[in-house]
Amino acid sequence: MTDVDPTAGPIAGPTAAVLVIGDEILSGRTQDTNTNTIARFLAALGIDLMEARVVTDDHDRIIEALDALRSRWDYVFTTGGIGPTHDDITADAVAAAFGVALPEHPEALAILARRYGDDFNAARRRMARIPQGGALIANPVTDAPGFHVGNVFVMAGVPRIMQAMLEDVAPRLRTGSVVHARTLKVSGVGEGAVADVLRAAANLRRDLSFGSYPFGHGSVGEIGTQLVIRGRDAGLVEAAAQDLIAELRNMGIDVAAT
Amino acid sequence: MTDVDPTAGPIAGPTAAVLVIGDEILSGRTQDTNTNTIARFLAALGIDLMEARVVTDDHDRIIEALDALRSRWDYVFTTGGIGPTHDDITADAVAAAFGVALPEHPEALAILARRYGDDFNAARRRMARIPQGGALIANPVTDAPGFHVGNVFVMAGVPRIMQAMLEDVAPRLRTGSVVHARTLKVSGVGEGAVADVLRAAANLRRDLSFGSYPFGHGSVGEIGTQLVIRGRDAGLVEAAAQDLIAELRNMGIDVAAT
Repeated sequence: MTDVDPTAGPIAGPTAAVLVIGDEILSGRTQDTNTNTIARFLAALGIDLMEARVVTDDHDRIIEALDALRSRWDYVFTTGGIGPTHDDITADAVAAAFGVALPEHPEALAILARRYGDDFNAARRRMARIPQGGALIANPVTDAPGFHVGNVFVMAGVPRIMQAMLEDVAPRLRTGSVVHARTLKVSGVGEGAVADVLRAAANLRRDLSFGSYPFGHGSVGEIGTQLVIRGRDAGLVEAAAQDLIAELRNMGIDVAAT
Repeated sequence: MTDVDPTAGPIAGPTAAVLVIGDEILSGRTQDTNTNTIARFLAALGIDLMEARVVTDDHDRIIEALDALRSRWDYVFTTGGIGPTHDDITADAVAAAFGVALPEHPEALAILARRYGDDFNAARRRMARIPQGGALIANPVTDAPGFHVGNVFVMAGVPRIMQAMLEDVAPRLRTGSVVHARTLKVSGVGEGAVADVLRAAANLRRDLSFGSYPFGHGSVGEIGTQLVIRGRDAGLVEAAAQDLIAELRNMGIDVAAT
């Protein structure tokens, strides 16, 4: 289901994408944190998050992004747009993307009826509509469930609810071997001072990924660079880290394993 | 340059997309904040941010996302991948997307040579490569410039540098009429209690957008919903807010303008 060549670089696990749905993210009103939460969740399961998108609460845009992502990656995780109001149109869009109906799901209906009692009105009843063939995702916070259909997992936008839903999603995912990371903290010099060494290491060990993230540039504080080595074989990651440390120290550069 | 129908809803300004480039966002190591910074920057200029994407440090993926976004929206803002290391490939990808060469830019070269003096090595020199026809974007923090070519603005990934670069970008953008927003805080009831009223308001005033964002659900604290009304005509936004307040109070619901 993925077109990634598993022999090219350190990517080898199942792949995934995040689709954040919501005008409030793109208007700048709300800082998205769900993508980061999902990224960490997937990393712990050995699933590679390959892409993330944010779209507005627009039926056609949601479908278009869903179709692009679900055809390319093993899993798609959406957040947002499953509440009771008129701008909550994610379930409609997912049903349309899969070409299925959007009937009331008996179990979802029962859950919502129990939660709301006498206040179970038409707007809240909309949240019981689940694309045909979908399975519910439990919401221990406010009860209104998410759902999964095909390779698409549809979750709430509220971070605390989204995070709780991930617990119910985890057992349904095929996991990969976990990616190991080592971070080296280089002090006193910028990225440009270590770029050649890093490039040589990356060329030598193509089964690992090497990242470089400067800190403190231009300000009065400490200047330096964090080097991150990632890969699925812990021994290779460690060996590369030791080689880099030795090489940088030979150059008189201050480096510490963190 | 946009296929948005300006008569359908409150979208009417120039449009934009954000493209965040970087493995560190998708691995979960780093929480992206640049999208939110750019979203707020654009909102103040009356430019509608329509979409955001995050891709890995992969040449083909960057080009693909760039081409999709630059052909659809008026402006594209990229962050990340313009440093001196081997994983900094944004300039190469932008040049490839536009089908132009990537020569050293004389002014960029002079800026970098001045900054680094005796430490101006080959890796740092890579940062002087600017796609043919590109104009520099000033970087007052660490000097290494961003650039803009066509409708694409290429900026650093480090938030403080990115934010500083926006100052130099602003004068180059066609601005729109600013979007006005009013937020009403509804206390004591969830979204489902106000959904019908909100839907009716949205149906009545199609030139405005109405959002609903619950808070405090399921926890011990205060429960409620924030209603956000947005539009380009301040008078219409205010009138809609007053109507909603009156209607909600008639229903015995506690609502406050914030």
